[in-house]
Amino acid sequence: MKELILQSLRQERQISGEELGRKLNISRTAVWKHINELRSQGYQINSSPRVGYSLVKSTELLLPEEIQLDLNTQIMGKQVEHYNEVSSTQDIAAEMARSGTAEGTIIIAEMQKTGRGRRGRRWVSPPGGGIYFSLILRPNLKPFQAMQIPLIAGVAVTKAIKATVPLQPEIKWPNDIIICHKKVGGILTEMSSEIDVINHIVLGIGLNVNIPGSLLAEQTAGIATSLIHEYGEKVSRVKLIQCFLYEFESIYRKYLASGFKAIREEWMANSHTMGARVRVNDRGREFEGKAFDLDNDGFLWVRRDSGDVSRIVSGDVSFCN
Amino acid sequence: MKELILQSLRQERQISGEELGRKLNISRTAVWKHINELRSQGYQINSSPRVGYSLVKSTELLLPEEIQLDLNTQIMGKQVEHYNEVSSTQDIAAEMARSGTAEGTIIIAEMQKTGRGRRGRRWVSPPGGGIYFSLILRPNLKPFQAMQIPLIAGVAVTKAIKATVPLQPEIKWPNDIIICHKKVGGILTEMSSEIDVINHIVLGIGLNVNIPGSLLAEQTAGIATSLIHEYGEKVSRVKLIQCFLYEFESIYRKYLASGFKAIREEWMANSHTMGARVRVNDRGREFEGKAFDLDNDGFLWVRRDSGDVSRIVSGDVSFCN
Repeated sequence: MKELILQSLRQERQISGEELGRKLNISRTAVWKHINELRSQGYQINSSPRVGYSLVKSTELLLPEEIQLDLNTQIMGKQVEHYNEVSSTQDIAAEMARSGTAEGTIIIAEMQKTGRGRRGRRWVSPPGGGIYFSLILRPNLKPFQAMQIPLIAGVAVTKAIKATVPLQPEIKWPNDIIICHKKVGGILTEMSSEIDVINHIVLGIGLNVNIPGSLLAEQTAGIATSLIHEYGEKVSRVKLIQCFLYEFESIYRKYLASGFKAIREEWMANSHTMGARVRVNDRGREFEGKAFDLDNDGFLWVRRDSGDVSRIVSGDVSFCN
Repeated sequence: MKELILQSLRQERQISGEELGRKLNISRTAVWKHINELRSQGYQINSSPRVGYSLVKSTELLLPEEIQLDLNTQIMGKQVEHYNEVSSTQDIAAEMARSGTAEGTIIIAEMQKTGRGRRGRRWVSPPGGGIYFSLILRPNLKPFQAMQIPLIAGVAVTKAIKATVPLQPEIKWPNDIIICHKKVGGILTEMSSEIDVINHIVLGIGLNVNIPGSLLAEQTAGIATSLIHEYGEKVSRVKLIQCFLYEFESIYRKYLASGFKAIREEWMANSHTMGARVRVNDRGREFEGKAFDLDNDGFLWVRRDSGDVSRIVSGDVSFCN
């Protein structure tokens, strides 16, 4: 009912409580209750005795009604679960995935108490300006192919950012989105599998959108930035998520149909990694070299100073410049 | 306290309630309550007014006290959770693993309502005669190596069976334990991972020990058998689990230290698969050939009738004979 009232408010510049009630076949008191509920969710709705209600401003929250408004996808985001505060959207999504929730479902939170990045590292997730969501995927892939998912997600994230704001984000292999060498987003891929079958993947995306640069500088020792800090103006979180869902669905389909080789070029075009001097730390084993290729499986190739080349299957890559 | 009473009963042929109470510093009434609790768990304890209590027979249940009695391991089975009835030990173990439960913990059930095998297939788990347990592992491996875990578990299962009962079980690649071409056990490996780090593995073992052959014949369309059916006598489930935990710990350590190549020979020696004519069905793609090798990664090599050889990464193998 709330959604229908919102729909009416969007269609009409102004509409009286009486008319709304008649249209939806509910009492004026019920209309009033729903209006108040919408207000409590952050919608600014004016009411005047003569002309009735009018929607002045949508909510700032990432509510399902907002995400799904004119969302142009078939699968991604067709189910949206929104929370004001969670421990971690990854945990909720994993739980839902285990109990059979459909592919494409996303779990969004305004803030995370224990948001995490790879290997249990903390992901700073303050309220109000970040995007923190987890997407449930059920690809018909072998477990070893799962490492390609964060790569294609990286392409979708950079495209979505570019479509929303005039900035040039780049992908840092395997899972970071950076602007001017600072982290603006991260991708976490967690999988449940048998030895040869993927049960589900939970793809987590964290993006620093409207988080003040000063807060990030303080909490991440200067390694992170945000879109608002780089661009200077507030960025629509809803539009960014919608763009991501659209771009990701498109690239995910292409990937499932034609494999990672079909995505490789696009990844290279959006990547910061090629040609860069990198330091590779694979749990203790450390070396430096120049990243010179990404192969059709999604692995990074690094040429060491000695001339030897290494295929990086795992490990952390840091940039020397 | 219950464990201490059990210990005393095992040490002494007979002991009075008064003496037990004095030894453990509890009242005779408290002793009597614990004795009754032990009886309700299946321990046969005689009591006579003059001589006191005596343990006639241990429980038939797979209780922690039984499993851990003289268990000769460092990690495996040091924590045992026992249930009379569960949906699936895999689900409970996964939940515990997520909340940080230590490596080596096992979850045992007398029966499973929805016991499962690979790819969501049902695993018949009637009460009274089966072994159904899940073991939590936290190996420092890459996710793609996880497929080697069921192989080394297969070796441990066959060795444990041989140590307990004079039968000749064999491993069918990748995850079945068979006797005379019939399934007597199965291994299910479920993993939670990031793209390059394993969070945990839950290794599930199902063994048909004292389940009547007729029941299995009926419920599995003749493809399964049990140890009691093959051997003709009841087999100690406790001893079998203890042997498994010991053998598995030993082989798991060797594997982590030296890789799968250190286990390969032993696997080959216990396998039914080498030289066998097999039909491979990998989600639709089907072909026949002869299994002729297992490589150092744990993959099966099959020579097709055309002469081509294939490395079987995934898929179901059935035996043509």
